[in-house]
Amino acid sequence: MRIGMLTSGGDCQSLNATMRGVAKALYNNLKDVEIIGFIEGYKGLMYEDYRVMTPNDFSGILTQGGTIIGTSRQPFKLMRTPDAKGNDKVELMKKTYKKLKLECLVVLGGNGSQKTANLLREEGLNIVSLPKTIDNDLWGTDMTFGFQSAVNIASDAIDCIHTTAASHGRVFIVEVMGHKVGWLTLHAGIASGADIILIPEIPYDIDKVVSAINKRTKAGKRFSILAVAEGAISKEDAKLSKKEYKAKLAESPYPSVSYEIGKRIEEKTGQEIRVTIPGHTQRGGSPCPYDRVLSSRFGAAAAQMILDKDYGNMVGMKNGEVVRIPLADVAGKLKMVDPKCSIIKEAKALGISFGD
Amino acid sequence: MRIGMLTSGGDCQSLNATMRGVAKALYNNLKDVEIIGFIEGYKGLMYEDYRVMTPNDFSGILTQGGTIIGTSRQPFKLMRTPDAKGNDKVELMKKTYKKLKLECLVVLGGNGSQKTANLLREEGLNIVSLPKTIDNDLWGTDMTFGFQSAVNIASDAIDCIHTTAASHGRVFIVEVMGHKVGWLTLHAGIASGADIILIPEIPYDIDKVVSAINKRTKAGKRFSILAVAEGAISKEDAKLSKKEYKAKLAESPYPSVSYEIGKRIEEKTGQEIRVTIPGHTQRGGSPCPYDRVLSSRFGAAAAQMILDKDYGNMVGMKNGEVVRIPLADVAGKLKMVDPKCSIIKEAKALGISFGD
Amino acid sequence: MRIGMLTSGGDCQSLNATMRGVAKALYNNLKDVEIIGFIEGYKGLMYEDYRVMTPNDFSGILTQGGTIIGTSRQPFKLMRTPDAKGNDKVELMKKTYKKLKLECLVVLGGNGSQKTANLLREEGLNIVSLPKTIDNDLWGTDMTFGFQSAVNIASDAIDCIHTTAASHGRVFIVEVMGHKVGWLTLHAGIASGADIILIPEIPYDIDKVVSAINKRTKAGKRFSILAVAEGAISKEDAKLSKKEYKAKLAESPYPSVSYEIGKRIEEKTGQEIRVTIPGHTQRGGSPCPYDRVLSSRFGAAAAQMILDKDYGNMVGMKNGEVVRIPLADVAGKLKMVDPKCSIIKEAKALGISFGD
Amino acid sequence: MRIGMLTSGGDCQSLNATMRGVAKALYNNLKDVEIIGFIEGYKGLMYEDYRVMTPNDFSGILTQGGTIIGTSRQPFKLMRTPDAKGNDKVELMKKTYKKLKLECLVVLGGNGSQKTANLLREEGLNIVSLPKTIDNDLWGTDMTFGFQSAVNIASDAIDCIHTTAASHGRVFIVEVMGHKVGWLTLHAGIASGADIILIPEIPYDIDKVVSAINKRTKAGKRFSILAVAEGAISKEDAKLSKKEYKAKLAESPYPSVSYEIGKRIEEKTGQEIRVTIPGHTQRGGSPCPYDRVLSSRFGAAAAQMILDKDYGNMVGMKNGEVVRIPLADVAGKLKMVDPKCSIIKEAKALGISFGD
Repeated sequence: MRIGMLTSGGDCQSLNATMRGVAKALYNNLKDVEIIGFIEGYKGLMYEDYRVMTPNDFSGILTQGGTIIGTSRQPFKLMRTPDAKGNDKVELMKKTYKKLKLECLVVLGGNGSQKTANLLREEGLNIVSLPKTIDNDLWGTDMTFGFQSAVNIASDAIDCIHTTAASHGRVFIVEVMGHKVGWLTLHAGIASGADIILIPEIPYDIDKVVSAINKRTKAGKRFSILAVAEGAISKEDAKLSKKEYKAKLAESPYPSVSYEIGKRIEEKTGQEIRVTIPGHTQRGGSPCPYDRVLSSRFGAAAAQMILDKDYGNMVGMKNGEVVRIPLADVAGKLKMVDPKCSIIKEAKALGISFGD
Repeated sequence: MRIGMLTSGGDCQSLNATMRGVAKALYNNLKDVEIIGFIEGYKGLMYEDYRVMTPNDFSGILTQGGTIIGTSRQPFKLMRTPDAKGNDKVELMKKTYKKLKLECLVVLGGNGSQKTANLLREEGLNIVSLPKTIDNDLWGTDMTFGFQSAVNIASDAIDCIHTTAASHGRVFIVEVMGHKVGWLTLHAGIASGADIILIPEIPYDIDKVVSAINKRTKAGKRFSILAVAEGAISKEDAKLSKKEYKAKLAESPYPSVSYEIGKRIEEKTGQEIRVTIPGHTQRGGSPCPYDRVLSSRFGAAAAQMILDKDYGNMVGMKNGEVVRIPLADVAGKLKMVDPKCSIIKEAKALGISFGD
Repeated sequence: MRIGMLTSGGDCQSLNATMRGVAKALYNNLKDVEIIGFIEGYKGLMYEDYRVMTPNDFSGILTQGGTIIGTSRQPFKLMRTPDAKGNDKVELMKKTYKKLKLECLVVLGGNGSQKTANLLREEGLNIVSLPKTIDNDLWGTDMTFGFQSAVNIASDAIDCIHTTAASHGRVFIVEVMGHKVGWLTLHAGIASGADIILIPEIPYDIDKVVSAINKRTKAGKRFSILAVAEGAISKEDAKLSKKEYKAKLAESPYPSVSYEIGKRIEEKTGQEIRVTIPGHTQRGGSPCPYDRVLSSRFGAAAAQMILDKDYGNMVGMKNGEVVRIPLADVAGKLKMVDPKCSIIKEAKALGISFGD
Repeated sequence: MRIGMLTSGGDCQSLNATMRGVAKALYNNLKDVEIIGFIEGYKGLMYEDYRVMTPNDFSGILTQGGTIIGTSRQPFKLMRTPDAKGNDKVELMKKTYKKLKLECLVVLGGNGSQKTANLLREEGLNIVSLPKTIDNDLWGTDMTFGFQSAVNIASDAIDCIHTTAASHGRVFIVEVMGHKVGWLTLHAGIASGADIILIPEIPYDIDKVVSAINKRTKAGKRFSILAVAEGAISKEDAKLSKKEYKAKLAESPYPSVSYEIGKRIEEKTGQEIRVTIPGHTQRGGSPCPYDRVLSSRFGAAAAQMILDKDYGNMVGMKNGEVVRIPLADVAGKLKMVDPKCSIIKEAKALGISFGD
C-alpha cells in the first residue's frame, strides 16, 4: 500500500510530530506500506516532486519544529486556474496521484489547504486530512495542533514585555497572530495578564480602550498591556465592506493594525506607546508537550482512518475525544470566537477590557 | 462581605494564578469585599492564623509558582481526631469561620482537601472549592490546574534523558509523579516519545516489558525509554490486598518502584539500566500558559458562585465549559485512566507498550 | 549607615538580582544599614521620591525580571539643563543626597547613567556603580548583566524563525537590539546559526550580502537567515557624517534598518524577504542563571566597596575576576566589537558572512 | 585529506554543535576533506566502526542534544589492558588510524578521554582535542562546553524546588552533578539562591550546616535549600584515605551522599528533609546559546589547528580568547574550585553557607 503525504500552508510547530504519528501507526499496523512525502505541499503533488520516506525519516522528529518535507502556500482561489505552463493544477495533482497508484493522500493543512483537500475529494481522490494551524480557526474541531505552542510563544513575549512595562510605567501593545480570528490573542492575553484584549470578533471602540487605560492610571497602575490580534478591527471599520476595508488597509501608512491603534491611544492619552510584534516566531520552534500529545493522537487516528478505508474526513477533537469530520462540512468555514461565550465572560469578570 | 481563602495539600504550579482569578473577579464585582488568607491551609483556619489580603497582594502573581499563603498536608482521616491540645479540629475551624463572620470559604485543594471541604459543608459552612493537583485525578472535572505544567516538566526531563539515552545506547527509566493514577505519566510519556509507559491503571507484566525492549534492540534501536508512574504496579502485586501491598512496599529495599523495575529488567536483559526521578520539581516553578488560562477561568467562575451565593460546589471543566460540581459528588472519588479509553488505544497504535 | 540605590535607563533582566546581591551582602556584613530605593532612577533622587527598603523587599526577587524600584531614561546631555520648574537637576540630586545623609549612592545603569554617576562623583557624592545593559557596550568590563539573558531571547527568536525559514525556503531577517554596538547580534547570530550577521562595527556592502545569499541558493540551501543589529549600517552610509546619517534615517520610510536591507535584497535577488523584530522582549523576563551568578557576584563586590569606603568606581568583570574601574575612565566610552577580534575570525571560518 | 572524529565519555549538551563547528570550518577552508565519524567513541576507532560523514550530516545539529555518532565510556586505566579477544586496544586504534590514512584524529572528551588522547599522541598520532564536560573540571581551560547548559538545568530544578519549599516550609536538598569538583553546584547554587552549598573542595561540618539552617529558622525563614554536589564530603570523611572512603561509600545504605546528609540533618533538627536528584537530565537536551557560541568558536579553532598542522593540543578558553594547550599538560590534571577564590568569597558575603 502506497500513501501520499503533504504539509501545506504556513508552517507551524507540530507538523513533524503529526506526520510521525501517522507514520508510526501505519508502519506498526500494516505489513507493506510505503509513504511518499510530497515536497512543499500541493506543489510537490502537481510536479511529481517527492521523496520515498523510510521509518528512519520519522524517527527523532517529535520535538522538531517545521516540516521535514517543506511546505508552501497555494491560494485556493487559484487552484482551478492554469499554472505557468497552462496546465490545470487539479489535473496535474490527479495525474501524479494515479501515476503513483496512491491508496490515499494525507493532508496536513489549515483552512485553505482543507478546501483544496475537499476539492480533490470531489475529484475522486481518497483524502485523510489533519487540522494544522496556530490560529485554531478550523471548523469542526475544538483544537488544532500548533495552537498551544503558539500561545506559549505569544505569552512568553507578553511576559517579557510585562517586566519592561512595569519597570518603565509604559503602555505596551503586543500584536499577536491569529489571522482573522481571536483565539490566539484571547488565550495568550489571558495567560499573560493583559489588561486589554482586542480581537476581530469584538470590534473595538477606541474611546473604550482609552478609558480602560485611564481607569488603570487613575487606580495608580503605572502601566497597561494590550494584546492586539493582527486582525483586530475598530467599530467603524467593521461597518465597511470587505473591499472597502481592504482598500483602507492598503492605503494605511502603518505596517500593521497595532501601530494605528497605538497612534490613536497616544493622541488621546498623551502617553508614550510601544508596539512589539513577535511575528513569525509564533509559528516556529519546538512543539510544546500539549501539542505533541495532540499530534500523536491525531496521527494515530488518521492512520486508523486509512486502515478502515474511511476517506474524505478531517481528524478533529471534540470534547476530549478524537473524531472524524466530513471534509465537505469543514471546507470553507471558519471557527470564530463567540463574543458571548463563557471564556469572554470570565475574562471580563477578571477586569479585562475588550474595548466594547 | 468577608471571604476566607486557603490552599491545602501538596503545592502545585497555578495556585497563585487561581487565587488571583478569584480575587480579581471579586474586587471587580463587589464594592465591599475583604479576603482573608489562611496561612498553611486548614491549619490556619483551625488556629486563626491568617492575613487580611489587599488587591495588591494578588498583583503580579499570575506567573509565580507556589502559594503566597502557604500550604500543608492535613490527612483527611485525622480530621475528626483531636489535635495535640485535645480540641476537635472541625470545631476549631467552624469557630474561626464564625468568629470572622465569613460569607464563605474558598478552598484550593486536591482529593484529601476536597473531602475536608465537603465535611465542612456538611457542618454548615459555605464552601466554594477549586480543583488543584498535578495528578489530574479529581472526579467531576476533565482537567485540574497544575496538571499541564507538571506534564511540561516531566516531558522536559524525559526529553533530556532522550538525548543521553540515544548517545549512549542505554535503557532509561524516568519516574513520573501522579500519585495513584497514570494521567501525568501517560501524557508526559506520549509527549516525549517514551517507548514503554507503565501506569497504575494497567498493571504490567515484566516479561512483556522486557520483550518490548528486546523488540527494539532487535530492530536496531540502541536505546529504550520507560516512563514509569510512581504508582505503577505489577500484575502479581495488583492481586495483593491493599494492606499486603503496603507491607511489601515498606519492606522493599528500593526507595521507589522504578528501581525494582530497573533491577528486574537488568536481570532479564543484561542491559544496564539508569533511573532518573525528577521528583518534586514536577510541582514547582511557574505555571504554563495553559494553566494560567485555566486558573483565570476557574477563578472567575468561583467568584461568580459567590456572587450567586451558590455554595457547596467545586469548579470544574467539562467539554471546554466551566461547570459547578456538587462537593458531595466529588468527595472521596478518584478519576482514573480507563485502560480502554481512546488515548490508550492511540498510544498503542503508535507502538507504545504498556506492559500488558 | 544609610545607602541610596537606583536603577536608571532602559530596564534589563538582572536588575533585581543585582540589587538583591548588594542588599544581602550589606545586611549580612553591617549591623546598622538602611537602604533607600529611589523611584524611577535619577528622577526619584531629584524629587525625593523614594522607598525605605527592608530585607524582605529583596527576598524572592533573584529570578524576577524588571526592577522593583522602577526606572526611567534621563538623557545625560539634559542633565545640566534646568527642569520644568527651572531647578538645576544636579543640584536637586545633591540636595536629596545630603538631606537624607546618605553614605553613598549605588547606581545600576548603562552608558548614559554611568556618565551621570560620574558627574555626581565629580560633584562630591560617593558613588558605587554597576554595569547594567543588554548591549554589553560598557567600557572597562568584559561583561554586563542583562547581556546573556538578552542573547538567549534573541537566539530563541532566531531558532523559531529557523524552522519556519527551513520549511518555507525563505530569506528571513531578524533584527536584534544592541544600540550602537554588535555584541548582542554577534552572539545571538552565532548561537542560532545565522548565515549572515550585520553589525555596526562592520559596515556592510549590500552586494556582498546578496552574493552570500546567492551562494547558499546555488549550494541547494533553500533558506537564509540574517541577524541584523538595529544599528547596522551600509558602507556608503558609514561615510556620512553623524548628522547626515541621522537626517537620512529620519527621512526613511522604514521603521528600522532591517526593512530597508530587506527591500534592497528583494530587489537584487527577486526572493521574498520577511522581517521579524523581537524588540523589547529582549530586555524582559527572568534573568538566565549566568546573569544571576554575575549579578550576585557584582552585588557582593559592590557591597565590599562600600565596606571599604572605596568610592567612585564601577564594578566590572575582567578575565573572570570582579574588578573596580574608576568611573572617570568608564564615563563616555563605548566598548565596541573589534572587526579583527578572534570571535569574528572564528565566525568567518564557519562560513558566516558579515557583508564585508 | 581525511580526518577522524570521535566523541568519548559521558555525553553532554553541545557535542553536536562542536562537531558542526569543526566540520563547517574544515569544509569552508579545505577543498578536499573527508570526515570519518567513529561510532561510540574510542570503541569505533578500535574496531573500525565508522561512518563517512557528509556536509549534510552536520547541518541542523547546532541545537540538537547528544551526539550523532554516539559515545561510550572507556576507562583510561583499562586502555593498556587487552580487549576480550586479547588484542591491545591502543594497537587496534593505531591500526585503524593508519589503515584509513588519517591526517589526524579530533577527540571531543572529558578528563579520561583527554588522557587517552594524550596516550595516542605519545604513540605518534596527530591529535586535536576539545574540552567536553558538564563538570568544567578540565585543566588548562576556563570553560568547557556543556557546563553552562548543565548549570541552566540544575538551576531550573532548584528554582522549581524553591517554590515548593517556600509553600510548604521545608528543608530541601537538591543533588547536583559535577563528578569530583564543585563548579556545577557552585554556579547552580548561586544562580538559584541556595542557602547552603556543599562542594567536594570544601569538606563540610554537619554541625555548621545545621546551624546555618537553624539560623534561617530563627530569622523567620520557613524553608532552606541545600545545593549538594554529588561529590560532597564531610570533614571526617575527607580525612580518610581514598580507599577507605570508597569502601565506606560502598557500604552505605544510601544511593548517594545527599540522603545521608539529609538523614543527619533530620536527626539534628527534627525537620523533615526532602531530597531531589535531577540526575542525568543535567547532561541532556538542547545546548544553551552560551554553549553554542563556545562550541562554534572551539570548533573553528580546532579546524585552524588542523590547517596549521599544529597537533597534540587541546582547544581551550583563557580570558575570553581561544587558546591551544599541550595535551601533555592537560592529561591527568583536575581543575578544582579554590576555596579561597573570589567567587566563594562573594557567595559567602551574600550569606551562603558552605558548611565550613
